[in-house]
Amino acid sequence: MKLLQDRIRECGKVLPGNIIKVDGFLNHRVDVRLMRELAKEFGRLFDLTGLTAVLTVEASGISLATICADEFGVPMIFAKKAKSDNIEGGLYQSDIFSYTYKKKVTLIMASEWLGPKDRVLIIDDFLANGEALRGLVDIVGQAGAELIGMGVAVEKGFQQGGQKLRERGINLHSLAIIESADESGIVFRGEE
Amino acid sequence: MKLLQDRIRECGKVLPGNIIKVDGFLNHRVDVRLMRELAKEFGRLFDLTGLTAVLTVEASGISLATICADEFGVPMIFAKKAKSDNIEGGLYQSDIFSYTYKKKVTLIMASEWLGPKDRVLIIDDFLANGEALRGLVDIVGQAGAELIGMGVAVEKGFQQGGQKLRERGINLHSLAIIESADESGIVFRGEE
Repeated sequence: MKLLQDRIRECGKVLPGNIIKVDGFLNHRVDVRLMRELAKEFGRLFDLTGLTAVLTVEASGISLATICADEFGVPMIFAKKAKSDNIEGGLYQSDIFSYTYKKKVTLIMASEWLGPKDRVLIIDDFLANGEALRGLVDIVGQAGAELIGMGVAVEKGFQQGGQKLRERGINLHSLAIIESADESGIVFRGEE
Repeated sequence: MKLLQDRIRECGKVLPGNIIKVDGFLNHRVDVRLMRELAKEFGRLFDLTGLTAVLTVEASGISLATICADEFGVPMIFAKKAKSDNIEGGLYQSDIFSYTYKKKVTLIMASEWLGPKDRVLIIDDFLANGEALRGLVDIVGQAGAELIGMGVAVEKGFQQGGQKLRERGINLHSLAIIESADESGIVFRGEE
């Protein structure tokens, strides 16, 4: 999606360690109007017939997922990273490895909010190793819900998460796939 | 706000320990249409002239803050709870005590996204002890930004956070203030 690629080139910052900072418009300060354009693009890319919910993981996916849910007229459900005692029994759970926190994290979702009658779209702001998204797919499976697809704003194409998800047959669309990023600039998939 | 009070009575659950669960529509599974109505109510309650940003804290405040930002046509910025190394220097910081995690947590916000020219509205889903909101006010002060006010969906009126913030002269509006909640039902402020 050219609009997003242009914004990444204009405002993104490449840091050592393959970190691409897009926190001026995507995951710290959020350009909500841009999120609306991304949501509309997902609406074009996916067949959302019978959609019942948009799913994401806390925290930085929530903003984009909220605008998608608003655009598509369904609720948004976000999986939590286990740490609070405010959620009692009746949970779907999936263990993932968080590269941000550098430790195992358990994603949890109350089972009363997702079941076999649901048709869901998974949304996230960023895809690198794909652990959080793998956990969400796991939770959708535990619920017996149908996964329509997975929409991601920015994918790091040089990491393995996207490839693994696509090899499982998941209908994954990333709106900007970064193939390489260094001091000479950012190259997106399709530009090589 | 009657719409929100009715929803809390209909769908909220009172648990031991003064926990009021509203995770079916506010902070786990989110009714985005309800968030839009709350945002419109904030638009009526506050003078948003010159508003430049909506601020909140991760994670559960992000959804309501995003819809508010969408409604008011400004970006949304969420303070993070320090744990990631993806944010380098140039930070506003405020230490708070998290009753959810039962430990000290440092709120951080990149200083490049907030400064003296900003006029901001703080939004959160829940107000109990008010530590997270106190931290956000602290960050707004560090930035030299102007605080228009603070909008909260659900306040626990029997805890001290709201009173402390109001005593500081903060223009705080909570759309539903719960005065008591037990097996006999929920009483909102103004109903006693």
